[in-house]
Parts: sequence; structure tokens; C-alpha cells
Amino acid sequence: MADLAGWRERADAALQRALPDPQTSPQRLHAAMRHAVLLGGKRMRPLLVYAAGSVFGASLDTLDAPAVAVELIHAYSLVHDDLPAMDDDALRRGQPTVHVAFDEATAILAGDALQSLAFDVLAHAPVDAAICVGLIRTLAIASGSAGMCGGQALDLAATGNGTSLSVDELETLHSLKTGALIRAAVRMGALCGGATQNERIRLDRYATALGLAFQVRDDILDIEGDSATLGKTAGKDVAQDKATFPALIGLDASRARLEELRDTMTEALAPFGARADALTALGRMAIERDR
Amino acid sequence: MADLAGWRERADAALQRALPDPQTSPQRLHAAMRHAVLLGGKRMRPLLVYAAGSVFGASLDTLDAPAVAVELIHAYSLVHDDLPAMDDDALRRGQPTVHVAFDEATAILAGDALQSLAFDVLAHAPVDAAICVGLIRTLAIASGSAGMCGGQALDLAATGNGTSLSVDELETLHSLKTGALIRAAVRMGALCGGATQNERIRLDRYATALGLAFQVRDDILDIEGDSATLGKTAGKDVAQDKATFPALIGLDASRARLEELRDTMTEALAPFGARADALTALGRMAIERDR
Repeated sequence: MADLAGWRERADAALQRALPDPQTSPQRLHAAMRHAVLLGGKRMRPLLVYAAGSVFGASLDTLDAPAVAVELIHAYSLVHDDLPAMDDDALRRGQPTVHVAFDEATAILAGDALQSLAFDVLAHAPVDAAICVGLIRTLAIASGSAGMCGGQALDLAATGNGTSLSVDELETLHSLKTGALIRAAVRMGALCGGATQNERIRLDRYATALGLAFQVRDDILDIEGDSATLGKTAGKDVAQDKATFPALIGLDASRARLEELRDTMTEALAPFGARADALTALGRMAIERDR
Repeated sequence: MADLAGWRERADAALQRALPDPQTSPQRLHAAMRHAVLLGGKRMRPLLVYAAGSVFGASLDTLDAPAVAVELIHAYSLVHDDLPAMDDDALRRGQPTVHVAFDEATAILAGDALQSLAFDVLAHAPVDAAICVGLIRTLAIASGSAGMCGGQALDLAATGNGTSLSVDELETLHSLKTGALIRAAVRMGALCGGATQNERIRLDRYATALGLAFQVRDDILDIEGDSATLGKTAGKDVAQDKATFPALIGLDASRARLEELRDTMTEALAPFGARADALTALGRMAIERDR
């Protein structure tokens, strides 16, 4: 059985090493970047890189760079999403958000610099240059307007207008906003491990279901969770009239959707047998988590 | 003699092709990305890529990707710098800035997506994978906290507090804020052309002088220029008590510094003879431009 806790520590240590020294200039920017990344987080995306790579026996040393890079992209996106002009959130992982702990300009710059750092880290991965280029393509496409940023733009358009979306439109939104980076994490792990095309298609199906499950669970937690456990403000989706699964299809149907997604993941991973145990465990976490 | 106007058209066409279709979803984000990039600009950085590559006979097809990528990074940085939390500028290249023409959230996201697109474009450059990785390393380091974002952070710290900087500190600030990307443009061109280490060191000296000259000229134009010709608000540096060369050493000494930098460029480029004519012309433009 895979050692998820050990991988999480490994990802934290690798992030620690990749981030700029807070003692070097510009100190305030570096402190903001570290605040954004190092104050907690589930490290779901790095764990997916390690778990997907381990299906094919990729070495952990190879997987560190994509694990770090995908988390840096995720962290930068949270810094920018929390800004007053976006979701205007003061609390994240139980800590003040970057623009609250520092200031708005520093938060914008810290996010920007974290994105650059993600590609810097990938471009220094100890892998063949062709694989390196493949990793960068995967992450760049997943981060941009055809991926995460595009999903965030759709989310902005829907906010304050949430229940006018169809379920299909909401799934598209999340398949970009959260799904693209989750798929990229799994793809990068598979790429480092030399997965075949068929294997990659299966893992993609798993990752797509996982990404959606993650978001459905997030929407349910916004209703059922409390801010202290979540480490962020509960009830914000309803307050902002955001498009959510419970708002569109109700809580019971949202829970049923989670179970369907669990089945999709199980089916997609079946041929890998025990080699996919870590991916299975991560899928379960996404569905059962309470924060 | 190199065809700077032809290269500028080439860069514009390549940018046009690289940017997402404004008809595809999310349309508003794509429109904002195109607004940020396509409404003018001197294209100094793409021209430097073509000019540096042409010293070594690199093909234009090879140089398009780094030319586009460095301009996308430059464009995103302007979008974010213009935000209310940063320089709060409403006018850029004679046009409303992105957050004015669209909104703040869209401007933040458009900048983010332009940065991702820059690395996406580089990772699809038609070059050997090893060179491709080298290009990405160069641009990522130049964009991040050890480069452009770091310089912007130093600039923020100095704003409202400008004349307390030493000239050395001001040069460090600009060597990061503007210089890093200008050096990266020249380095990427040289990398595509297979320059030797010695040649790269010379080009680096040229690019460092050019970057500084560009900024000294910018500071002078903020005092002597008018908003209509500049296409942006003149007199802002003084109004915001920004650190500038004229403020620290006076206008005459700033002009003298420009002449020194011209000599540095001439000396650095001398061994390349006529092959460096385009680089020489770009150096002259940086020093003599009136917008």
C-alpha cells in the first residue's frame, strides 16, 4: 500500500526547497510566495502525480518536479481567486489570505511569480528533454484559458447568476476550473512513468471523475461544513448566488452523483489492480473528505 | 540591413495566431487577452529575439516562438501593473487598459492566462527538445521573483519613497523589472542560433546596457514627453514620487548615462560586425525614441 502521508511530507519538503529563500531580496515578495504555498493544503495534486507515476514504477526523484509545479500553479490560482476583485476571501486554510497578510499588489505579484516558478521547476526536472517538454505542455495548457483560467472566467460570469446555468454548463465550468489541473497532475505522473496511450486514456477518465467529485464534494461542504473545519468561510456559495450542484440538482442528487463518480473511478482503474491502490485511496478521499 | 518593420509585422502575425480565437468560450477572457496584446506596442522584445537570432543565422520559423512568448510575458506584466492595486493606470498605448475596458477580475485572469500561453507557445517551438527546455528555463527565470516580478516588487517598495534609493539600487531595480526580460529576449535568440559561450557573454553585456538605456529614456520621457505621443499618462512618476534617474541624478546626468550605455552596446557588438546591425539599430531606438 502506498504511503500517502510520506508522499505528502515529500511534496512539502520539495516545495520548501523550490521556493525562494525568504532572506534574499525581494524579501516581502518571497515571504508572500511562501505564505501562499507552505501554510497547509491537502497536497491533493502532488499526491496524484506520485500516485499516477507509481502505477508505472516512475522514481520519486523524477516525480518531484511535476508534483511541485502543479501545486505552485494551484497555490497561485488561490492567491488570485481570493483577491477583492475576484472572490474577496479573507480566510484560506485557516490563515489570512495573501492580500490580507501582505497587500493586494504583493498578492498579485506573488501569484505571478509562483506561476513562473512552476515552469522554472518543470524545466529543471531530471528527465529526458522530450519528457520535460511534454510535462510543460501539459501544465501550460491545463493552466491557461483552455483550462483553469478559462474555468475561472466562466465561474465569474456565472456568479450572482448561478442558478441560470444548466448542469452540463456547470460540469464544463468545473472540468476546466478544477478538473484541468487534476487531470494534468495525473497525466504528468503517467508521462514520467511511460504509460501507453490506452493506459493514459483510462487514467484520464479516472482523473476527470475525480476532479468532478472533488467539486461536488466542495459544494456539499459549503452547505454542510463549518468554517473552522474547512479553514475557509462556509456558506459563501449561497451568499454569492454561485452555481453549485446542490443549488441546481439538490443535495440528495449531488450525493448520488458522487457515488456514480466513485463507480467511474473504480471501473477506470480496475485493469491496474493493486498498482492503482493509491489512486483509489485519493478518489475516496475526494469523495469522503470533510474539509 | 535587417528589416525591422518586416519583423514587427511577422511578430504581430505570430501573436495573432498564438492568441485564442475570440469566438470560442470563454469569449470575454479571450477578448481581454487579445486587447492586452494586439492593440499596439513597439514589439521591442520580439525584435530583439529576431535580431539576436539573425546574428547566428537562426531561421525566422525557429525564432517566432520565443518572439511571441517574450511579448506575451511583457503584455501580461503590463495588464497586472496597470491594475488599481498596482500603478492604477487607465491609459496604455493610447487605449483603455484591460481592467478599464473589461473589469479587474478579467484583467487579473487575462494576465494569468497570457503567462501560461507564453510557456505553452515555447513548449511547442519547432526546435530540438534540449533547446526548447533551454528557452523555457531562460524565460521562466527572467519572469519570476529573481527577474521581472522581483523588480516590480522592488519598485512597489520604492514608490512614494522614491528619492531614498541610491543609483545602484535603482539600477538593480530596473535590471530586474525591465532588464531581465530584455536579456531573456536576446538570450533566447542567441540560443536558437547556437551562439558560443563567449558570444553569449557579449550579447548579455549589450542586452544589459540596452535594458538600462530603455529605462533611463523612459524616465526622461515621463518628464519631457506628452501623454498623446506616449500613449500613456506623462508625469506619473513625479506625481507618485517614483524612483527615477532624473529624480536621483538630474536630467543632464541621465542624458550622459544614455551616451555611456550607447558606447557599451557598440563595444559589445563590435566583433559581430554587420551581422549585429539590427541589434545596433534597436539600441539606437531605445535611446532616441520619443514614445
